[in-house]
Amino acid sequence: MKRQITKDNLLELLLHGTPKDLQDTIDTIHPADILDLIHEDPEHAKAVLNRLPDDILADIVEEEEDEDKYEILKQFSDNRQRNILDEMSSDEITDLIGELEEDEAENILNKMDVDDRDDVKKLLEFEPDSAGGIMTTEYIRIFAKNTVKDTLEFLQKNTDEETTYYLYVVDKNDVLKGVVSLRDIVTSPFDTPMLSITNPNVITIQYDEDQEQVAHKFEKYGFILMPVVDEENHMLGVIEFDDIMDVIQEENTEDIHHLGGVNKEERVDSTLKESFQSRIPWLIVNLFTAVLAAATVSMFETTISKVVALATVMPIVTGMGGNAGTQSLTIVVRGLSLGELTKENAMKILLKELGVGILSGIVIGSVVALGAMWMESNPIFGLVTGIAMFLNMILANLAGYFIPVILEKCHVDPALASGVFVTTVTDVMGFFLFLGLATMVLPFII
Amino acid sequence: MKRQITKDNLLELLLHGTPKDLQDTIDTIHPADILDLIHEDPEHAKAVLNRLPDDILADIVEEEEDEDKYEILKQFSDNRQRNILDEMSSDEITDLIGELEEDEAENILNKMDVDDRDDVKKLLEFEPDSAGGIMTTEYIRIFAKNTVKDTLEFLQKNTDEETTYYLYVVDKNDVLKGVVSLRDIVTSPFDTPMLSITNPNVITIQYDEDQEQVAHKFEKYGFILMPVVDEENHMLGVIEFDDIMDVIQEENTEDIHHLGGVNKEERVDSTLKESFQSRIPWLIVNLFTAVLAAATVSMFETTISKVVALATVMPIVTGMGGNAGTQSLTIVVRGLSLGELTKENAMKILLKELGVGILSGIVIGSVVALGAMWMESNPIFGLVTGIAMFLNMILANLAGYFIPVILEKCHVDPALASGVFVTTVTDVMGFFLFLGLATMVLPFII
Repeated sequence: MKRQITKDNLLELLLHGTPKDLQDTIDTIHPADILDLIHEDPEHAKAVLNRLPDDILADIVEEEEDEDKYEILKQFSDNRQRNILDEMSSDEITDLIGELEEDEAENILNKMDVDDRDDVKKLLEFEPDSAGGIMTTEYIRIFAKNTVKDTLEFLQKNTDEETTYYLYVVDKNDVLKGVVSLRDIVTSPFDTPMLSITNPNVITIQYDEDQEQVAHKFEKYGFILMPVVDEENHMLGVIEFDDIMDVIQEENTEDIHHLGGVNKEERVDSTLKESFQSRIPWLIVNLFTAVLAAATVSMFETTISKVVALATVMPIVTGMGGNAGTQSLTIVVRGLSLGELTKENAMKILLKELGVGILSGIVIGSVVALGAMWMESNPIFGLVTGIAMFLNMILANLAGYFIPVILEKCHVDPALASGVFVTTVTDVMGFFLFLGLATMVLPFII
Repeated sequence: MKRQITKDNLLELLLHGTPKDLQDTIDTIHPADILDLIHEDPEHAKAVLNRLPDDILADIVEEEEDEDKYEILKQFSDNRQRNILDEMSSDEITDLIGELEEDEAENILNKMDVDDRDDVKKLLEFEPDSAGGIMTTEYIRIFAKNTVKDTLEFLQKNTDEETTYYLYVVDKNDVLKGVVSLRDIVTSPFDTPMLSITNPNVITIQYDEDQEQVAHKFEKYGFILMPVVDEENHMLGVIEFDDIMDVIQEENTEDIHHLGGVNKEERVDSTLKESFQSRIPWLIVNLFTAVLAAATVSMFETTISKVVALATVMPIVTGMGGNAGTQSLTIVVRGLSLGELTKENAMKILLKELGVGILSGIVIGSVVALGAMWMESNPIFGLVTGIAMFLNMILANLAGYFIPVILEKCHVDPALASGVFVTTVTDVMGFFLFLGLATMVLPFII
């Protein structure tokens, strides 16, 4: 058995192990752990990288964040770069090139052999967020006329391809005809004809499907690998589950960021400039909302000047409406993302949101009414506060339902803009209802 | 090759196909698609289920949502239930039992054979959100003394186990010694000794690791399967990537829901009662914040009664502070979830947030100051508004950084409570700064 390596003696092996020791052991270490070590110990990084074989370097470049892949690659001579690129998968090279300036990209493409270059050029033409943009062209095609033993012998001779979990049966025009899982191959007797373990009912992905849709399919079926095809069922590539894990996290980050009013690209370790540019546009949009709400208040300045307590209570009415609206839109936006809000249950969910609005309106409205009544020793003041609160809670929940649903219909990301619209409704209507009602009953609350 | 089935003729096959046709074809259809059909066409559900073999029924029960698994199972006779349970994996039975009343759970356990029952009872003892709670006990143990060919022959005779992607080498005490990937088995010549393709540097998961940590490990390493061990490296079970996809979505939903002020369990299709119970506690917590903010305003009622325009402008100061604080906490909470905010970069990120607060404070503060000045034709009024806005933006960003970081240190989910605390700061301090400054310069703004 190969040598056991702990975290403590890994650096020792990488820096000072004999070439034979290194060669024997290196493929038992996950490249992500070597990459960690390089990040944690930058002074030894160059020495470590220089001692690694090309295929491991290719793995490490693939593990690295897209925007930093080139940093590692460009440390090597042109010749070495050629060898590393040769070991990398086409989707990873596409991701790398996607981050580069035009001349650097050209430079990388020129270092690739003709077939690989053609693959990458094709991949670069797909939308980066579509199935074509995340697939790789490395997968195993077979013809189904052989036995299991023949296939095993074929695989033993073709150890290059990484994505061996399923083998795809194609005809001579590359039209996808079936799939065989590696599990079936290893659990079937050697003389089993491949045809009898080939599944013709392949679940495929169209090259132009959005990556979020692709992620839903992986979640539904739990496959490790799914084939990407064109309209005529020609096999174009495969998508691996680990790329889909990244997609899921990316889509979730996008939703969370949009709900919080920041750009999807911002990261906690973005620079001051990036963060400021991510946030200031949303603050300016929100400023319009705030001014609209303030304009509503200013219509009632005469009323407020007569009953100053209105100024004390009014932020409660709008604030609580905003909270209820945010709750409602959070559930609706997440339901849309997960595909759980559908045409079939839309009406039921709308009625439920209305119901929650009425119930919360009764509870919060009553509490607020009693508080306001006690504060001003005036039942009419309490009643006005309670009614405005009750109505604003209902409006909040309706806005929290309708705004994301309508945005989704208009193909705008509901996570992106719902928050601003919902708080506009709850602020403007909250002030208007509360101060309007107060104005109507002014003689009784002065 | 087997028969090709489209979505249109699937129901036809399931209802009216000959037994032989059904038996030949059924394992080419993904159980998730059969489950979809049962959900879409409930009137045929019973007829379809009754015609399916036990192993397919087991797959369908496994595919179904945990809370609905028992609905399918209990349609069958006790004897049939026994056979279906026999085909299910231990982690899926554990999930099923987790949803049942005690007597129903007992009933299910009594229908299992002794070994499986012991496995499930052990799994039920682990925390549901820990590695032990999501692992399964079905995996393949091997001894490494054989060749590749011997191993293939062993696998051909042991086709029961589902999780074949890696084989685990254990000693006679079940201590984990190494791992062999199926890929290496199929690409190595038949006479290769297993020892030479066994990797002793196995990356393992401790049984008590939190599922979020486990998900991070899967994302880092991209494995299909990871082994779960105890403190002495005894092999306890394995976790599969598709269960981790569910964990990732669950954790993301939890963060999104907590940020929006609703319980993690609420779904868009929850009942009115569930939704109300999920939201009203958070509304009541927010009501305290709102009352605290109102109490701050009430301290300044005399000032407001003299300059009513303060009531118009004050919601802008607090509202914009709330927006900036939410932006900042969104980035920090997501950074904590993704593990991107670490001890090493904490100070840099704090300074960046401070910087964003100062810059946004200057921009938004200036705009608001000019607007207020123009509205009241009073430069001092504008100045007071601008300074309060500027200071509140800085406070907002500091609160957006510190509150989630401190909550995380106290082992409270930062997504859960940060929002309330941050808006408390921006509301109370916003009103206090603005009305306090206005009171200090009152003679100049009347």
